[in-house]
Amino acid sequence: MSECKAYVTKAPEGGIEYRSVNITGEEGNVSLKPVLTGICGTDRGIVRGALPFSYDPSNYDYLVIGHESMCEVVESSSSEFSPGDLVIPIVRRPGHCPNCLIGRPDNCSDGDKHEAGITGLHGFMREQFQEFDFNLVKIQDKSIGDLGVLTEPMKNVVKAFEVFERVSSRSIFGNGISTLEGKTALVVGTGCEAFLYSFLAKDYGFDTTISNRHPIEKNSLEMCSEFGIKFVDTSKDPDFPAKPLDLVIDTSGDPGTILKYLRKLNYNGILILFGTNGRAPDVELTGNDIDHIVEKNITIAGSVDAARIHYIKALDYLSKWNRMHGDTMKNIITSYFKPGETSVFTQKPAGEIKSVIKWQ
Amino acid sequence: MSECKAYVTKAPEGGIEYRSVNITGEEGNVSLKPVLTGICGTDRGIVRGALPFSYDPSNYDYLVIGHESMCEVVESSSSEFSPGDLVIPIVRRPGHCPNCLIGRPDNCSDGDKHEAGITGLHGFMREQFQEFDFNLVKIQDKSIGDLGVLTEPMKNVVKAFEVFERVSSRSIFGNGISTLEGKTALVVGTGCEAFLYSFLAKDYGFDTTISNRHPIEKNSLEMCSEFGIKFVDTSKDPDFPAKPLDLVIDTSGDPGTILKYLRKLNYNGILILFGTNGRAPDVELTGNDIDHIVEKNITIAGSVDAARIHYIKALDYLSKWNRMHGDTMKNIITSYFKPGETSVFTQKPAGEIKSVIKWQ
Amino acid sequence: MSECKAYVTKAPEGGIEYRSVNITGEEGNVSLKPVLTGICGTDRGIVRGALPFSYDPSNYDYLVIGHESMCEVVESSSSEFSPGDLVIPIVRRPGHCPNCLIGRPDNCSDGDKHEAGITGLHGFMREQFQEFDFNLVKIQDKSIGDLGVLTEPMKNVVKAFEVFERVSSRSIFGNGISTLEGKTALVVGTGCEAFLYSFLAKDYGFDTTISNRHPIEKNSLEMCSEFGIKFVDTSKDPDFPAKPLDLVIDTSGDPGTILKYLRKLNYNGILILFGTNGRAPDVELTGNDIDHIVEKNITIAGSVDAARIHYIKALDYLSKWNRMHGDTMKNIITSYFKPGETSVFTQKPAGEIKSVIKWQ
Amino acid sequence: MSECKAYVTKAPEGGIEYRSVNITGEEGNVSLKPVLTGICGTDRGIVRGALPFSYDPSNYDYLVIGHESMCEVVESSSSEFSPGDLVIPIVRRPGHCPNCLIGRPDNCSDGDKHEAGITGLHGFMREQFQEFDFNLVKIQDKSIGDLGVLTEPMKNVVKAFEVFERVSSRSIFGNGISTLEGKTALVVGTGCEAFLYSFLAKDYGFDTTISNRHPIEKNSLEMCSEFGIKFVDTSKDPDFPAKPLDLVIDTSGDPGTILKYLRKLNYNGILILFGTNGRAPDVELTGNDIDHIVEKNITIAGSVDAARIHYIKALDYLSKWNRMHGDTMKNIITSYFKPGETSVFTQKPAGEIKSVIKWQ
Repeated sequence: MSECKAYVTKAPEGGIEYRSVNITGEEGNVSLKPVLTGICGTDRGIVRGALPFSYDPSNYDYLVIGHESMCEVVESSSSEFSPGDLVIPIVRRPGHCPNCLIGRPDNCSDGDKHEAGITGLHGFMREQFQEFDFNLVKIQDKSIGDLGVLTEPMKNVVKAFEVFERVSSRSIFGNGISTLEGKTALVVGTGCEAFLYSFLAKDYGFDTTISNRHPIEKNSLEMCSEFGIKFVDTSKDPDFPAKPLDLVIDTSGDPGTILKYLRKLNYNGILILFGTNGRAPDVELTGNDIDHIVEKNITIAGSVDAARIHYIKALDYLSKWNRMHGDTMKNIITSYFKPGETSVFTQKPAGEIKSVIKWQ
Repeated sequence: MSECKAYVTKAPEGGIEYRSVNITGEEGNVSLKPVLTGICGTDRGIVRGALPFSYDPSNYDYLVIGHESMCEVVESSSSEFSPGDLVIPIVRRPGHCPNCLIGRPDNCSDGDKHEAGITGLHGFMREQFQEFDFNLVKIQDKSIGDLGVLTEPMKNVVKAFEVFERVSSRSIFGNGISTLEGKTALVVGTGCEAFLYSFLAKDYGFDTTISNRHPIEKNSLEMCSEFGIKFVDTSKDPDFPAKPLDLVIDTSGDPGTILKYLRKLNYNGILILFGTNGRAPDVELTGNDIDHIVEKNITIAGSVDAARIHYIKALDYLSKWNRMHGDTMKNIITSYFKPGETSVFTQKPAGEIKSVIKWQ
Repeated sequence: MSECKAYVTKAPEGGIEYRSVNITGEEGNVSLKPVLTGICGTDRGIVRGALPFSYDPSNYDYLVIGHESMCEVVESSSSEFSPGDLVIPIVRRPGHCPNCLIGRPDNCSDGDKHEAGITGLHGFMREQFQEFDFNLVKIQDKSIGDLGVLTEPMKNVVKAFEVFERVSSRSIFGNGISTLEGKTALVVGTGCEAFLYSFLAKDYGFDTTISNRHPIEKNSLEMCSEFGIKFVDTSKDPDFPAKPLDLVIDTSGDPGTILKYLRKLNYNGILILFGTNGRAPDVELTGNDIDHIVEKNITIAGSVDAARIHYIKALDYLSKWNRMHGDTMKNIITSYFKPGETSVFTQKPAGEIKSVIKWQ
Repeated sequence: MSECKAYVTKAPEGGIEYRSVNITGEEGNVSLKPVLTGICGTDRGIVRGALPFSYDPSNYDYLVIGHESMCEVVESSSSEFSPGDLVIPIVRRPGHCPNCLIGRPDNCSDGDKHEAGITGLHGFMREQFQEFDFNLVKIQDKSIGDLGVLTEPMKNVVKAFEVFERVSSRSIFGNGISTLEGKTALVVGTGCEAFLYSFLAKDYGFDTTISNRHPIEKNSLEMCSEFGIKFVDTSKDPDFPAKPLDLVIDTSGDPGTILKYLRKLNYNGILILFGTNGRAPDVELTGNDIDHIVEKNITIAGSVDAARIHYIKALDYLSKWNRMHGDTMKNIITSYFKPGETSVFTQKPAGEIKSVIKWQ
């Protein structure tokens, strides 16, 4: 009964295969099947064997991959869910540190946690699986449609802005009339997370720009226009930004790019680091960089993962944006694949913002 | 009447001279004379012409230097002060940004502020001067003695820990029993500020270490021992630290040292940058460093200057430590100079922690 | 040129008249005319002469009433606004205390501020007036339609939840999985503000109930149902609530009702006081009430008015709810009056949630 | 081996007896004997049978009373403690709610916790007992002497000021120069806790007054004078206070007194409720009181108990005050009793601030 087709890898060695698996003893009071699952840089990193921290569940010599997903409830013995409900399964599962104990494994103090599809726990790219209700977040607004699959990446964005709110409370970050009007945000990168970050920065009230070192597709420019965000191709505008930046969010993980914009941060400026790229080229950090951080009271904050509350808020933002900008926003999903296709794990489709596998 | 002897420089060109000056039109309802003034790296930087942001007051072709001071009230038309009172004059004066408007010029949003003895305002190394009462903080506990001159450096330490408290609130930073027991702090450097930082880290409950790349004097080791702090000479203990660090405070401004300990930060770790050294050698920042900051939810915060509230709390800490460890703590002042001596501005005395000029 | 028709009262004596006024010397770079203006308990209190703190602007022997409004820009010399823009004028104007200086006159420390239509400043119920751009908040989403007139009451709700967030941070208020699932909120009252409070409580994730001592109209029940809120008629359900409450928000100002629900607050419970009714009957506060507040770490917070940031967020919530529940939510405006009609100021229409004057 | 003399009551019926008890199966890695134990209103309430929430440990038909204590380590198998160490045992023990799980049982969300000497756990007034090291806080500064017995009441004060800091962050509570200079605090009551509250209010920078409805002893007045606190006998100064109060802390639990000063609170004023007295007379709460709380953004916060971190900080404050004002502050202990004396549990000695039992 628990035999089904799944995308499997071997962690941390890598590889990808769509084949039958037989996972026994999996617990949970809700039976699920995937509707859409998203593919991100982490998935490709595991498949490429480039994520040394990834590992198989104990007693298994493989790992079912997949952590971005929207699923449908097939059966439920939980009073909270009924067949047909659409849900998002939570990726990271708590250990025993104080942060984990209060439902914040995203802030785990000791690294003793698991992540479905990444570290020691089978992921969601399989025809069926079991989950406990407390690991599921229900989609209340079904009009959200396929955008629901963006909940997992969006929850990271919501958590990062929580971090922004906390660290920016060290001084008055806003203007003298209680708002962020006149404050500038730059989001570095033009992938799925970058767009979601820029939408939220705009929502917060920032004068928001998204940037890359190359042009972007017409569809992407339309999204920027619809959301009121500027795009800068820095290969053509090397002097950008003309004025100091108040908030920089990096999704590239590239030290050179990060340092370039760190040097442009204003007094009380905040740099949120989200992107990772272990193989990016080194860059020279100077004494003047340190001076700049000190003299301007600058804060740099890494932010990873998110908690249940952020999944809920992520769905809320997606629902809102879908209602306001749905026609344009659907362009964020750039290609759909069928179960069994594996090329998308090794080759990034041209113009990709988000590639998904459509299971039904 | 306002003619007096003063230590003057020309900013940002540098130089140091003790000579008569005639400063007219200076306002204030309290007349002061210095008791002790301290010399720090900023003073030496100005004198060396290495601080390009320093500048003379308008209408003057010189700058009276000096921002660390303990003064005596000579005359007062303010009801808050009487002749004989010991006071600390505040260094930074507010502009018109929201932070300045609420008494937090240390968090100035636009750089439009002045600092006595550094940027556009005459400092405190002169036989007499005028101040307004709102720029003065009274020493309530006169038993503090010469340690009062440490109020200005100590206020920076208090503000930096306020920053620590704010940024660490992004998760549960402490242990599961509401305290910091078991959490480790490293203070990089063994100058005056470094010792003050380590004393406060210990007070907060951190298992605290202070480090440098060379041995330190016996007097300094005695202070460590008295305050319950460890000292590590990293030239002899290259594997330090054996375990991840929860808080690192840098007073060196050296990118290489900073990066070395950033790489040792624990989950939810905090790095406070305080020291500046524009001429320190560059270091390679890698993609893995960015990964580390992201995956562990690490925060890096620059912290400069402090506000009136921090001067008051600084005096409180100094008074407390003086009462508990006064005999040892007085070793923090390593040499006394007479007014007129200028060598201390260009040459750091051997074994210096804090050099002061004794005016009376 | 500044002669126009207006609703005028005499503060604090009261009365209401629609007549020509000639207000000269009013400054501002934007000319406005009202589209819709709302009537609330404060307006009726002024008209009834029951608000002793109300007063006329200096040099006037009358006060133009009206603080809830949605206006259209007629002319603008501000680059931020163009003719045809819809805007909400801000009610309270800052004085010189620290809170006012940073754009938070809602938190004024000394009472030295003005409120349009209430205290010393002409209000918005007139055919035309001038304003400065910094006192105006633009409606970005014009599809909001007539609901825009709810921005002023809604901004109070947003600020009160900011207060909730601050005071609830004294402990972990939520559950052990980072959310408010399972936490209960009660909003006392069924007026316009009460509904807005209950919508936001639901949005935050509370299991939300709204209550009154009498039944409510069918339209109101439909709104409850659409938003997922329960209604309790306490005259028929005297045992309500069966379980302790985590958050109580009062819009009644009635001491007896407030105390009744204060006694039902859970550990770490929060009571937000918003409604005022100086003439409500007294109630006996007992030693056991004090015990209950102490032993359960309960917090009670009064909350009045709001700042520019809350107007912006209010518009954002109204826009979102309009898109999700617009057909039902429009029932919140229960009657429209023409300029010149004055009965609505002295007599509350049956089944009123919000009565408005439609100027165009 | 665990047979010893103890003060026992029967909860919640009351009574007090000093007799042999045989408590078996008590766990812990540290053996303790009391040095000093304090008697407070809670103890007298239990003895009088007036605390219905008090109960015996399961399997016992009596309760060893006593929660304020300073003890000496007799034997220890914990590496953290050695014989001769002085320690304070923690009163409240955690349950399983989120606050308890992170070491904050003082903020327990569901009431499922125990308190030594009060609810379901034997207290500290016995010749010997066992404890786990994690329930003990070591006295680092032994010069604190008998004042160490004030740690338990003082920890409540520290926690209440933590609450003050959180709730006051809803606006700028201080003045425009970042401090509390010019802000007024009133502590209602003149018992031990009241004095400790007033000392800490003064430390925070408040212009501090302590009040009662009768005169106080000369020794108490000397403490006020030494700490820079004013005393007001409100029976002789009925118009007190002349100006609005910024912070009021009540230790009386008396509704009438509380309401009297609530009505005097300034804009953004804070009322901390700490004292409890279920039998105090009722008082009329009016609609105008509610208006006052709302219109002035007032906050009222109950505060009970404290966590380990507050015991540590309590010791730090006591140590500091002992060094600054030790000769006067020792007057806070007004009488010493021998083990076996029981009258102090039923009769409050004249002029009592704190009565203690001296065990060694």
